[in-house]
Amino acid sequence: MSSIKVLGIKDVAIGKGFWSDRQGLVSEAVLPYQWKALNDEIAGAEPSHAIENLRIAAGISSGEFHGFKFQDSDVAKWIEAASYSLASRPDPELQVWVDEAIDLIGAAQESDGYIQSYYSITSPGLRWTDLEWGHELYSGGHLIEAAVAHYTCTGSRKLLDIMLRYVDCVDAAFGRGEGKRRGYDGHPEIELALFRLYRVTGDERHLRLAEYFVDERGQKPCYFDAERVALGLGKREAHFELDYFQADMPVRDQRVAEGHAVRGAYLYSAMAEYAALSGDGGLREALSAIWENSTGRRMYVTGGIGSQGTGERHTIDYDLPSDTAYAETCASIGLAFWAWRMLLIDPDSRYADVFERALYNGVLSGMAADGTRFFYVNPLAVNPAVDRARTELSHVKTRRVEWFGCSCCPPNLARLVGSIGAYAYAYDESSIWVHNFISGSARFPSAGGELGLLVETDYPWEGRFRLRIESGGGTRALRLRIPSWSASFSARLDGEAIGSPRMEKGYLVVEREWKAGDELELELDMGIRFLRARPEVAEAAGLVCAQRGPFVLCAEEADNGPGLQRLELDPSAPVEAERRRLDCESGAPLESLRVSVGGRRMLLPSPGAPLYGGEPPRYEDCRIILLPYFQWANRAEGEMRVWLRSR
Amino acid sequence: MSSIKVLGIKDVAIGKGFWSDRQGLVSEAVLPYQWKALNDEIAGAEPSHAIENLRIAAGISSGEFHGFKFQDSDVAKWIEAASYSLASRPDPELQVWVDEAIDLIGAAQESDGYIQSYYSITSPGLRWTDLEWGHELYSGGHLIEAAVAHYTCTGSRKLLDIMLRYVDCVDAAFGRGEGKRRGYDGHPEIELALFRLYRVTGDERHLRLAEYFVDERGQKPCYFDAERVALGLGKREAHFELDYFQADMPVRDQRVAEGHAVRGAYLYSAMAEYAALSGDGGLREALSAIWENSTGRRMYVTGGIGSQGTGERHTIDYDLPSDTAYAETCASIGLAFWAWRMLLIDPDSRYADVFERALYNGVLSGMAADGTRFFYVNPLAVNPAVDRARTELSHVKTRRVEWFGCSCCPPNLARLVGSIGAYAYAYDESSIWVHNFISGSARFPSAGGELGLLVETDYPWEGRFRLRIESGGGTRALRLRIPSWSASFSARLDGEAIGSPRMEKGYLVVEREWKAGDELELELDMGIRFLRARPEVAEAAGLVCAQRGPFVLCAEEADNGPGLQRLELDPSAPVEAERRRLDCESGAPLESLRVSVGGRRMLLPSPGAPLYGGEPPRYEDCRIILLPYFQWANRAEGEMRVWLRSR
Repeated sequence: MSSIKVLGIKDVAIGKGFWSDRQGLVSEAVLPYQWKALNDEIAGAEPSHAIENLRIAAGISSGEFHGFKFQDSDVAKWIEAASYSLASRPDPELQVWVDEAIDLIGAAQESDGYIQSYYSITSPGLRWTDLEWGHELYSGGHLIEAAVAHYTCTGSRKLLDIMLRYVDCVDAAFGRGEGKRRGYDGHPEIELALFRLYRVTGDERHLRLAEYFVDERGQKPCYFDAERVALGLGKREAHFELDYFQADMPVRDQRVAEGHAVRGAYLYSAMAEYAALSGDGGLREALSAIWENSTGRRMYVTGGIGSQGTGERHTIDYDLPSDTAYAETCASIGLAFWAWRMLLIDPDSRYADVFERALYNGVLSGMAADGTRFFYVNPLAVNPAVDRARTELSHVKTRRVEWFGCSCCPPNLARLVGSIGAYAYAYDESSIWVHNFISGSARFPSAGGELGLLVETDYPWEGRFRLRIESGGGTRALRLRIPSWSASFSARLDGEAIGSPRMEKGYLVVEREWKAGDELELELDMGIRFLRARPEVAEAAGLVCAQRGPFVLCAEEADNGPGLQRLELDPSAPVEAERRRLDCESGAPLESLRVSVGGRRMLLPSPGAPLYGGEPPRYEDCRIILLPYFQWANRAEGEMRVWLRSR
Repeated sequence: MSSIKVLGIKDVAIGKGFWSDRQGLVSEAVLPYQWKALNDEIAGAEPSHAIENLRIAAGISSGEFHGFKFQDSDVAKWIEAASYSLASRPDPELQVWVDEAIDLIGAAQESDGYIQSYYSITSPGLRWTDLEWGHELYSGGHLIEAAVAHYTCTGSRKLLDIMLRYVDCVDAAFGRGEGKRRGYDGHPEIELALFRLYRVTGDERHLRLAEYFVDERGQKPCYFDAERVALGLGKREAHFELDYFQADMPVRDQRVAEGHAVRGAYLYSAMAEYAALSGDGGLREALSAIWENSTGRRMYVTGGIGSQGTGERHTIDYDLPSDTAYAETCASIGLAFWAWRMLLIDPDSRYADVFERALYNGVLSGMAADGTRFFYVNPLAVNPAVDRARTELSHVKTRRVEWFGCSCCPPNLARLVGSIGAYAYAYDESSIWVHNFISGSARFPSAGGELGLLVETDYPWEGRFRLRIESGGGTRALRLRIPSWSASFSARLDGEAIGSPRMEKGYLVVEREWKAGDELELELDMGIRFLRARPEVAEAAGLVCAQRGPFVLCAEEADNGPGLQRLELDPSAPVEAERRRLDCESGAPLESLRVSVGGRRMLLPSPGAPLYGGEPPRYEDCRIILLPYFQWANRAEGEMRVWLRSR
């Protein structure tokens, strides 16, 4: 059992910088926009129907259910994100919307606590009959997460009480007891939500129910198979077999990240919570193997997972195509959730490094500079003309869009950005971990009352980080992550260089009796790093990608002209990096980087030269201009590449 | 108008060597096998139903129609191929099958001459109502081609007379006259078949009907649109719009190879026949532009065309992915047909070079060494594990298969191989062209009777070619193609080196008064050539492929081990090439080449090394073993690549 704890959202205040910019955008632009989207008020966007469905279920409106069965979950994630915003930025209008949404959920709740607008509207008698695809517990899980967030951020029990009744309903329906269903949801989510709820309520029933759902998954005889017989359904389609649901074997037997990438990441997150709370060795062994497989063989350099569109899923080891990549925004968010929970079992920087890789690349790429356009799919190479022409690229969008029929990603992104402060630190009695570098202040419970930190940093734009003890003190090890991308670092304690830094599991450890005014400074190496994939990744063989700090960089047509395949990067040439503001199409100014690397460009032969010829290509020297991957597609539509050919 | 003529199949005798091996295989293995396949007698193969459909239409059998509407065309192509075989290799058993098939077609013919088992069986009243997709004239075209071949190869008018009645039926139904349909087929084929028929019958009605179908295509108002209204059909699906049928504009306005690759190649073949017979400048202009586009921007190095599975079609310029390639065998066959007919308008070696590229690569790859397994799709890179995992590669097979539900390619291949002799030469009053190097003899009409040639060559395995005048003579220019891949050549006339060879349009011209015993020798450069694609081809940027003579080479796992992406070819290193026999899985011995080129292989880092790291890759020197592309997948299943990374 691990005793590592996480700070509550209200224990961390975000200071000026990268994250306050983004949280401001979420509060001022994203949340109002998404509220309109959920209310079908965005002209030209695919309608959500999510609020209207709840109104119909509540009897306030009449009509038919529209959208996916899990449409309620978009409202849940929005409430969660809005709650984080309300914690630090009071906003009466937002408060009204949140209350309205919560009231609707309460009104849509059935008398025994059940909530899902789809079944309530269309087929109340069929509830819990299609766990494989019904997403009832998935939607419920997101509502529970929203309730926990709303309660901890605002103090209001309104949604929490609704969801406690819901959990009672679920607890009565599922489990190993007489007359209960031995089922679990086709889309993991309720598990991690119940662990989260348990951390707030301390109610053992919540813990046991969470454990039940994890333990039951993949047991034989297969619950989903029995359901299909009862529903008269035939064989599952290819790519949607039991491994798609991570239900082909009990979770402790799993060793490989199979199936739907988001489902997997949510399940592994719950398994990690379970292992952290129980010390369960079987779970740790499974998690360790799945982690190695997932991040060591099946993850894009952007922290994207799930390389194939069909089934939004993993395929096989090292199969990481750039152009047909799926790499759903939600999957990177799920990977971040999982990585974070691995840190609670084992505070090793390998997990925090993956958290950061996903966060600053595959997650943030999901949102445009102005907060009102979104990516669901995050490819690593696009050519708009080719993407439009080829059917196998039809899932790829080269511009972020207003909303999706299945719009899981936009509010998921909002809730992660809104709660980012909670992912900066962890602590136990003897240590404080700085997992992520975020400017602002934080308060830690301490033997002698409370320990207050103030952090100043312009991270991730710059690598300097200064931590000052503001209040409290006591003997503790401060553990600062040294990211694996930082070739070297320097650290100073109260202005004095730390000569022989003590490193443990990728963290710089400074242990002493701290007192107010103590200062720890860190400077990371923000030099451009050229990465290669392992040679097993066929699609990246011979290619390089550049990274600066946590940002994976990419080349865009807007900076380099068309024909990015003609560029050849020279990793040995001098590099220049400067801050710049991008002129976004939306008009939003975007703080960015302009990284210029050396290279050459293949010259086009004369128009009459043959398609295939014996002449070696000719080149001209050029500078290749790169920017952070997450900011691509904020200017004119054009080509983009993360992996470039290399000399 | 062009006066260039083609030899009849009986004017050319194939001598020992590459093509007699293949024609022997077709006669002894392919035709009997395909007859069984058409009769649904191949265990484990997708049933054809083609013969059974004709039996049902003829009233000999009862039951329902199965398969595609164009299923009859497989029988037609088989009869055509069998006819070629009978011309040089009498075979009583094959003769019986051919007669049986022809009798069935006659019996299935309706009283007014109409033939198509689909409509005759399922919906006689609906004939000619769905020209867009019905394939009636397409099937009829193949039957006409079979009739022409059967007549010219065997002298029998049996099938020809059946098809003349069919053509009368078509002529009565289609055209600009009162009460006729102003339609044309969604799949071009009848056009080139009618031109071919005209060359045998000399009947102007056949010529006019062929011209009508070409001229009418793409005219407004669109015939297919009117049909869809009548049939109550809605909008066309993406990738199946009018350009799919090359019917979005009149053919003389077309400039780009759009749509379904086979449809296009068959149409352009007919346009070329039309232009050759009429001298039509509008057609020549269109053909010239479409040729430039098709072979200059939309053709694989293997002579494959149609890069996308959905719609089996062209996408956009330079979009030539190796792994998702479609490159249907029939499309390369169609490209060869088209190239051949371009030579009749303009005997320029550029057309013969493309004919040869398609023939020795994308066409022959369609058949296994033993003649009983076939490829429909011809990718330029495969990794069996990835191909099985990814849906966007589901059209790719890594092993040739027994038969296809849509089995257009196997009998198409058989008829091209069977008639290859007719593609060696062309002539007019003053010249004889040697377009392709095939051992054997040929007889040309000549002012003074007949000119007989004997050719000895081990081409394409070797580059030596010896031509002797066997009989006849007279003043004529012998024009020998010098393939563009041959960096140099030497030629000798009666043993004397030709010092200053006269070249015209890529042909060595030797003009003199010839007499029996004269000998012309040619030696081409069979050195390995390393090709690059134009830099616009994103998928081949930085890669090379090797070619020896007309053979595009590829690397297979069987020779190089797995992980072909790890190989890096060094074009400057010494090369070795030797003949070898491949041990095929089928047991068939396969005469082949073993080409060894220099290079290096990326070493695998330790298992624990990260998926993405800053270390440049390490290499070991190695030899890379290549073989002709068309012979891939005759050994154990494994990876294959045409384009390799290059130093």
